[in-house]
Amino acid sequence: MTLNISPTTSSARSCLAVVLAAGEGTRMKSARPKVLHHIANRSLLGHVLATLADAGATQTAVVVGPDREDVEAEVRRSLPNAKIFVQRERLGTGHAVLSAREALAGNHDDVIVAYADTPLVQTETFAKLRAPLAEGAAVVVMAFEAKNPAGYGRLITSGDQVLAIREHKDATEAERAITLCNGGLMAIRGDVALMLLDKVGNDNAKGEYYMTDIVEIAHKAGLRAAVMVVPEEEVHGINDRAQLAAAERMIQDRLREAAMAGGTTLVAPETVFLSYDTKLGADVIVEPHVVFGPGVTVEPGVVIHSFSHLEGTSISTGAGVGPFARLRPGAAIGPKAKVGNFVEIKNTDLGAGAKVSHLTYLGDAKIGAGANIGAGTITCNYDGYNKHLTQIGEGAFIGSNSSLVAPVTIGEGAFVGSGSVITDSVPADALALGRGRQVTKEGWAVEFRAKAKAAKGK
Amino acid sequence: MTLNISPTTSSARSCLAVVLAAGEGTRMKSARPKVLHHIANRSLLGHVLATLADAGATQTAVVVGPDREDVEAEVRRSLPNAKIFVQRERLGTGHAVLSAREALAGNHDDVIVAYADTPLVQTETFAKLRAPLAEGAAVVVMAFEAKNPAGYGRLITSGDQVLAIREHKDATEAERAITLCNGGLMAIRGDVALMLLDKVGNDNAKGEYYMTDIVEIAHKAGLRAAVMVVPEEEVHGINDRAQLAAAERMIQDRLREAAMAGGTTLVAPETVFLSYDTKLGADVIVEPHVVFGPGVTVEPGVVIHSFSHLEGTSISTGAGVGPFARLRPGAAIGPKAKVGNFVEIKNTDLGAGAKVSHLTYLGDAKIGAGANIGAGTITCNYDGYNKHLTQIGEGAFIGSNSSLVAPVTIGEGAFVGSGSVITDSVPADALALGRGRQVTKEGWAVEFRAKAKAAKGK
Amino acid sequence: MTLNISPTTSSARSCLAVVLAAGEGTRMKSARPKVLHHIANRSLLGHVLATLADAGATQTAVVVGPDREDVEAEVRRSLPNAKIFVQRERLGTGHAVLSAREALAGNHDDVIVAYADTPLVQTETFAKLRAPLAEGAAVVVMAFEAKNPAGYGRLITSGDQVLAIREHKDATEAERAITLCNGGLMAIRGDVALMLLDKVGNDNAKGEYYMTDIVEIAHKAGLRAAVMVVPEEEVHGINDRAQLAAAERMIQDRLREAAMAGGTTLVAPETVFLSYDTKLGADVIVEPHVVFGPGVTVEPGVVIHSFSHLEGTSISTGAGVGPFARLRPGAAIGPKAKVGNFVEIKNTDLGAGAKVSHLTYLGDAKIGAGANIGAGTITCNYDGYNKHLTQIGEGAFIGSNSSLVAPVTIGEGAFVGSGSVITDSVPADALALGRGRQVTKEGWAVEFRAKAKAAKGK
Repeated sequence: MTLNISPTTSSARSCLAVVLAAGEGTRMKSARPKVLHHIANRSLLGHVLATLADAGATQTAVVVGPDREDVEAEVRRSLPNAKIFVQRERLGTGHAVLSAREALAGNHDDVIVAYADTPLVQTETFAKLRAPLAEGAAVVVMAFEAKNPAGYGRLITSGDQVLAIREHKDATEAERAITLCNGGLMAIRGDVALMLLDKVGNDNAKGEYYMTDIVEIAHKAGLRAAVMVVPEEEVHGINDRAQLAAAERMIQDRLREAAMAGGTTLVAPETVFLSYDTKLGADVIVEPHVVFGPGVTVEPGVVIHSFSHLEGTSISTGAGVGPFARLRPGAAIGPKAKVGNFVEIKNTDLGAGAKVSHLTYLGDAKIGAGANIGAGTITCNYDGYNKHLTQIGEGAFIGSNSSLVAPVTIGEGAFVGSGSVITDSVPADALALGRGRQVTKEGWAVEFRAKAKAAKGK
Repeated sequence: MTLNISPTTSSARSCLAVVLAAGEGTRMKSARPKVLHHIANRSLLGHVLATLADAGATQTAVVVGPDREDVEAEVRRSLPNAKIFVQRERLGTGHAVLSAREALAGNHDDVIVAYADTPLVQTETFAKLRAPLAEGAAVVVMAFEAKNPAGYGRLITSGDQVLAIREHKDATEAERAITLCNGGLMAIRGDVALMLLDKVGNDNAKGEYYMTDIVEIAHKAGLRAAVMVVPEEEVHGINDRAQLAAAERMIQDRLREAAMAGGTTLVAPETVFLSYDTKLGADVIVEPHVVFGPGVTVEPGVVIHSFSHLEGTSISTGAGVGPFARLRPGAAIGPKAKVGNFVEIKNTDLGAGAKVSHLTYLGDAKIGAGANIGAGTITCNYDGYNKHLTQIGEGAFIGSNSSLVAPVTIGEGAFVGSGSVITDSVPADALALGRGRQVTKEGWAVEFRAKAKAAKGK
Repeated sequence: MTLNISPTTSSARSCLAVVLAAGEGTRMKSARPKVLHHIANRSLLGHVLATLADAGATQTAVVVGPDREDVEAEVRRSLPNAKIFVQRERLGTGHAVLSAREALAGNHDDVIVAYADTPLVQTETFAKLRAPLAEGAAVVVMAFEAKNPAGYGRLITSGDQVLAIREHKDATEAERAITLCNGGLMAIRGDVALMLLDKVGNDNAKGEYYMTDIVEIAHKAGLRAAVMVVPEEEVHGINDRAQLAAAERMIQDRLREAAMAGGTTLVAPETVFLSYDTKLGADVIVEPHVVFGPGVTVEPGVVIHSFSHLEGTSISTGAGVGPFARLRPGAAIGPKAKVGNFVEIKNTDLGAGAKVSHLTYLGDAKIGAGANIGAGTITCNYDGYNKHLTQIGEGAFIGSNSSLVAPVTIGEGAFVGSGSVITDSVPADALALGRGRQVTKEGWAVEFRAKAKAAKGK
């Protein structure tokens, strides 16, 4: 059997991605399904869906296990137009892919089969995997040269064609010497995908349908199966927590290298943890021991000192953060502003050149340019039920250990005396005090010490 | 000479462990004896004593140097029923072991000789070391295949028997090619141990008694010496701070692997430091950069955020800790409670669902379920001499920057206004305020700025 | 041509160091010149200048690019008596060195040519590089055995002489098999340096003057060129941020090893970041995750707990710091003093045995021996324009959440009540209070909750 091939270029070709996400992951020992575990602050499933979208998948079908509302929710959150199919029984990868039969029956040029627990495959790799399809290949197998091939399916090749994938336990001694192994992912030409998958049988020890069989089926049908070799690391699958940690390390190394290539200094890259979406400008300096949660954008020339933790935050040019700073979602740090140690900022605009140097909590606030927020200042933004706004004008000076009971406004250039509780708004250029008057009792300590020592003796 | 052998099974056999702990460790450059240095928050000596107890030692004898009250105290603390023997002179390992002659003269089936500065030998390894004794071997040598054997004693073997241990400096060129090296530890059959050790002489360059000589002595007496091979890492000895750091790394890797195997996520295992006794439940997530001191138990489903430091603490299911949290001995964090950033908790019960989100010190306190402790709250538990209790009822709301002067009780559902100093107990559902009234001086800042600038100019 | 050689010993020989610092470093993607980037808290240029001074350079000439006021300032700061020469055009290393012609014309026994972007060459290495000059060599090439020599200049040798350095692109197949590569740095005998350099031509593809040509020129002139082989790591050059991070790692490893060799415990050396000038005494214990900025001296027996950040600080014997401590320039921690968590100390003497355990800011203060500074204490040292001094006497007790408005003095043995704002000095043994009196409104919370819930519903 031969087919007329009229390949289009990869970019113009439509592409269905079938993502297998039904694995239970029992070796994770987790109440959470495996594909919802995170690396670089995004679920494994989310990574795979995002990469496939970047790689030009025009339709995505996700195969989930039964009653996995949590996985389905993550699919909807990550890629709203993905179609979800449920695999009711666990009868092998071939069966899992065919759970998305309705999607496969669509008129796609290319089909990619990917795994939600194999999140390190890169965008360009998917493009390369599809490329041979445009040149007439029916199947493309993503393979790797295994350091230790024991346990993996071996690729039986002839020239640049793959004749079959032999499972380890079925392999002859000679075949076991092969180090080119099946990485699991495949691209299949859309016009033959269903035909090939439907021919997969379950005449084997476990009675399962193995997708890998389509290679031999294609070969026997006179179709060509090509191979695409990637580094072993790229098809790293995740089955337990140690493999999850290994994947985290690999993706962190990629993110760190990309940051440095873009002109960011990571003084000690191995101690800096980035999110999948962290944006760091040129001449940003990140000192050792810094953690970036999702949603952080840092403009050029910012210094992030050690022991800082940032999430959902934007930092403008020339600002300084930390050490020991915690920036939470909604923090927007203005140009040349300074955030010092033991400072938490949440849902707050900090104006240009403003300083919050020590032991402060700013929540739900707008701080004007050049304002100085003294050590120990706390915006009392929450009354147990509702959150309220604190506004501080440009150039205002908030004395140390002050409590600003929101909603409250401190005018431009106003001063708040140290240790004050401010419940009423303060006009511009005014001084507000709200504290007790000092009383001194001479000699008191002599008597106290005597009593306290006696009490201690008891 | 032959002996009638009537081996019993290892588990039923009595076992004397002789632990050599008299080394001075001058290369540590420390005022502290080597074996009292720590890895994973326990002394080297403590690790070895605990492992031997786990491995079924029925009696332990520790050989210490003269006038080492600190080492003796650690023995008594770690294993109260251990016997302590003092080696008065430094005349070699054979002499050191014989310092425990009184113990060796007891009627033990097996004798293990271990080193307090070799803490990475595992429980199962000691069991395997003893096993050949039950099958008639007189001596079992713990050996390793050395990557670089220079300096180590080589095992001269014939079949599965060890004929002798040859010190590097005494070895022929051919013997130096041997890579199977002496790891130092041995098991000796109790009925021949004293006889073999007493035959060790000191006719060598240094005039010392080498325990290794018993292998050749046994062989010449018609007794069998067996070998047990372990990875080189397991017999890693500690003589300087770099070797101490290497041992710390190895034990941390073991602890991290065990935690992950149990279903805990360590996002970046290499940045998480565990104690020998840290207990982490399934689906606990530990973010990068977390340090566990001794005595921490974490129930399933807890998230420990980055930059947290925990010691002597229990955390219940579903709670969240950090980032930047410090939990000190006696902290008990209830289910679903939240401990936030720059919060220190010591000797305090935090009730279910209670929140302590920012910049707070809780010491010697009992916090009811669902209470909300505002930012900057401090329990004033210490008057310079004595510590006092703070009790906060269920659902109470402590306003920010409050000082609770203990002993004091805040009733259920009560409110404390921001910035208050609370010296008297507050009834349930009451509001307590203890702060100055706000005073505002309009225009004050204009004059102040003029004066301050002038002062700065001077 | 032959020359009369009258070598003097290396230590007695005068030495001109020519440091090439004109590189633009475009691959750094930085607004800052490459040689001003830092490792171990000192600029690359600063490291090289310091090492050369230690290695006995009697005169240093730094070749900078045009209009590099920032680089010139760093030279003046790092080594005030260095001479600065500007390379106006970029015509190769030979041209760059000759920019310092005036210095080369001086009467130096030895000339070293070094690179400001190659900061890992060690003091002893420079001494070894010079040694052959004293024995008659005209040129000494610093070379390394390359793991992957592609791209490097190869050393064409005969016996122990270097005949030429062949650039990779000009090398024959046979020459490319050579793995001994040019590390860039050279020593040249002062009496022939200018002669050799002046003979370098620019008859090559790029039309540049290559300093490496002096080897072949010397050989043809009957002069001897020697080689000195170093580990590849030592001549690690820095051209991008990844190489900067690699250099940081290497220098940190050196600093960590040196600290451990001196008797300091680094529990997890890979998580501790030292400065080029950090001084740590014997039996100092540094827990995981600690960062040392410049200017820190720690006496023996101090424990630095995890998550501490220190800069410009001295710590006396037996003190304890952290976890979560920030010590800033001018902090002087007395013997057996304790600095606890979330504490910042700047420009402050902390007396012997004094305790600052939690959530405190001390700036511009003098704290007497044995004083106890309560949690949440803040020295209000800054009024927006000027800084003022806080003095606390021996044995004083500062209650929690106090604000000390400087300038202010608390006498010996005095007490400050919790939550006080102290604006006036307090005599010895007195009690000072400055806080509102507590008012309690019974039942208030019931009504409040009803209103707040209603507001939330809206």
